Amino acid sequence: MKYSKLYKETLLKDIIPFWEKHSIDNLYGGYFTCLDTKGNVYDTDKFMWLQGRQAWTFSMLYNKVKKNESWLQIAKNGVDFLRNHGIDSRGNFYFSTTQDGKPLVKAYNIFSDCFAAMAFSQYALASGDEEVKELAIKTYYNILKRKDNPKGKYEKTTDARPLKGFSLPMILSNLVLELEDILPADEVEKTIDFSVNEVMEVFLDKKSGLIYENVRPDGSHEDSYNGRLLNPGHGIEAMWFMMDIAIRKDDQKLIERASQVIVNILEYSWDEKYGGLYYFMDVKGYPPQQLEWDQKLWWVHLESLVALSKAYELTKNPEIKKWYDKIHNYSWSHFSNPKNGEWFGYLNRQGEVLLNLKGGKWKGCFHVPRAMYQCWKSFEAIEKSIQ
Amino acid sequence: MKYSKLYKETLLKDIIPFWEKHSIDNLYGGYFTCLDTKGNVYDTDKFMWLQGRQAWTFSMLYNKVKKNESWLQIAKNGVDFLRNHGIDSRGNFYFSTTQDGKPLVKAYNIFSDCFAAMAFSQYALASGDEEVKELAIKTYYNILKRKDNPKGKYEKTTDARPLKGFSLPMILSNLVLELEDILPADEVEKTIDFSVNEVMEVFLDKKSGLIYENVRPDGSHEDSYNGRLLNPGHGIEAMWFMMDIAIRKDDQKLIERASQVIVNILEYSWDEKYGGLYYFMDVKGYPPQQLEWDQKLWWVHLESLVALSKAYELTKNPEIKKWYDKIHNYSWSHFSNPKNGEWFGYLNRQGEVLLNLKGGKWKGCFHVPRAMYQCWKSFEAIEKSIQ
Repeated sequence: MKYSKLYKETLLKDIIPFWEKHSIDNLYGGYFTCLDTKGNVYDTDKFMWLQGRQAWTFSMLYNKVKKNESWLQIAKNGVDFLRNHGIDSRGNFYFSTTQDGKPLVKAYNIFSDCFAAMAFSQYALASGDEEVKELAIKTYYNILKRKDNPKGKYEKTTDARPLKGFSLPMILSNLVLELEDILPADEVEKTIDFSVNEVMEVFLDKKSGLIYENVRPDGSHEDSYNGRLLNPGHGIEAMWFMMDIAIRKDDQKLIERASQVIVNILEYSWDEKYGGLYYFMDVKGYPPQQLEWDQKLWWVHLESLVALSKAYELTKNPEIKKWYDKIHNYSWSHFSNPKNGEWFGYLNRQGEVLLNLKGGKWKGCFHVPRAMYQCWKSFEAIEKSIQ
Repeated sequence: MKYSKLYKETLLKDIIPFWEKHSIDNLYGGYFTCLDTKGNVYDTDKFMWLQGRQAWTFSMLYNKVKKNESWLQIAKNGVDFLRNHGIDSRGNFYFSTTQDGKPLVKAYNIFSDCFAAMAFSQYALASGDEEVKELAIKTYYNILKRKDNPKGKYEKTTDARPLKGFSLPMILSNLVLELEDILPADEVEKTIDFSVNEVMEVFLDKKSGLIYENVRPDGSHEDSYNGRLLNPGHGIEAMWFMMDIAIRKDDQKLIERASQVIVNILEYSWDEKYGGLYYFMDVKGYPPQQLEWDQKLWWVHLESLVALSKAYELTKNPEIKKWYDKIHNYSWSHFSNPKNGEWFGYLNRQGEVLLNLKGGKWKGCFHVPRAMYQCWKSFEAIEKSIQ
């Protein structure tokens, strides 16, 4: 089977039906995400990251794949839950609520807000709902307002040794393209320039060619647990955001640089003994503080497949294709689960299933369908260009 | 070799020399705890939990094993660092500082304070230092003052679905005995009664015989990630604290109950496939949120050895001895590392070393030496009674 067909069919006949069937809360709205191997709900708490991400996914499918009214309805289900129960009095998004929408964990960071903004923007495009569009814009500016102190009063570190994190510029580089149609053009350009500069000039280390997860405000490296931390999946995911920006800017040099960084990170983080990509690493090879460092996570591998298929589409570099095949073989043989649908999320280092789940507190309807869609489209272009 | 001799010799010829040789910061005071397999320092940050715990260990050795002046000096090194750099303007203890004592992570919980209070109390007993004794008392009352809201402004959960945690009554049950000589007798009795009641009547589930990590304020169970969580090592450790209290109260019934709970937890959390005890479990068998749930941790196994040797000393129950032998064989063959000294801390489920370290952010000079001392003394009593 051609890869374009594999990804398209898996998206439409396996992944999406799994979430359509198991995740919809018809009683209180929103989505269940704690789903066991077969899709049974094992916990009913609602996590705003995942509410936003699933609402985004179904809106995106409606916008890009097919004007399927039931997808729009599913998207609305999450958008309404977020609007009615996800926002605190300051306009910040909670981390989680009970099934019926009572706040459980407060707005201690701005990532819930980022995924809500993405959802609102895609849904506004799909539905034409002006109120949701306004809410997307308002949420975006609220994120920018909080971005220099995203944890607010929950920040536990002093300013004795300040570090800035990669997550924020990385997410912004994707978020701004998601909101491109509803933000002023100069705002879009400004945020693109900011995030490309942060990602490619500040967090990308020129010497090693790797992306650091945390750097000092002046961009230099700190010899501490956080300062030495590498998050290979983050770095690779950011590279396909960079390539999306490069396409928009018609910047072939940025495409080439991003492709090289993907290879650098893959070479560094591939587990030669058991295969797969490590979750966390210490750049000096010291023991990381994350006990889960050697585990193999679904999103790390899916983001690698997206990044590699996009890089191959844009460069036709055979080294990229070799890496694509390697990650493809590992991912499809370890995470995929056609018998029950969706992909497993968490494997141990040896590649065995660590948690018997298809969704949880952090895994929802997002990385798998987004990667399926992205790889489908990249391989469609690749296969077309070969014919 | 007799077990009493094994534990005594390992304590005095392996474990303590390791920390004496590698952990002392002669430049800024306090202790390095991030030590690789051979004892080399790989990170110089100082974690107040571990500063307190090591100062406690060396004070305890001075008080109970030998009046060794260099041990007292090592204890003073940590006590002074804690006094000079560990305390914020409210009398709360930071989580961590830089090597030279600049605050890094603020006082977001009261566990640093608990270990500081233990250290001050043991050190005051060893040195006769009245100021440190006063500081121990002051720290203890500050812990009590904060105990109903230990995280203060850093608490992220709302009060929509309140839970109380097992850690606090568990630690208090040990802390109050540690501070017995310097607190008023009625305060000691009150806190003992409170903690025994919480541990044995509230957190211990009558039906399953297991200890829950979190329960509702009325003691009932909540069907959520936190409500379903079991932390086998915590439950087992608490049982030897209960037995210490039972000895003091001459309460044979409490000894019998605690011994039974140890067996219940061990039966529930023993890994039949690879051996060793799981780190976290979900009481309904659902996937836990802790990705490290299946790992084998040093302290879980050492606390089990202490609990079992104490339970066997006090009950002579052959079922306890059987479990002791099982945990002994696993622990000494997997964690111990006579070649380089100290024990490994973190193994994967299969029993292989996961992190190449002897100390880190959470592992210092505490569980290993405390367990060595406790098991040495228990086996001394057991062997004497057999002769």
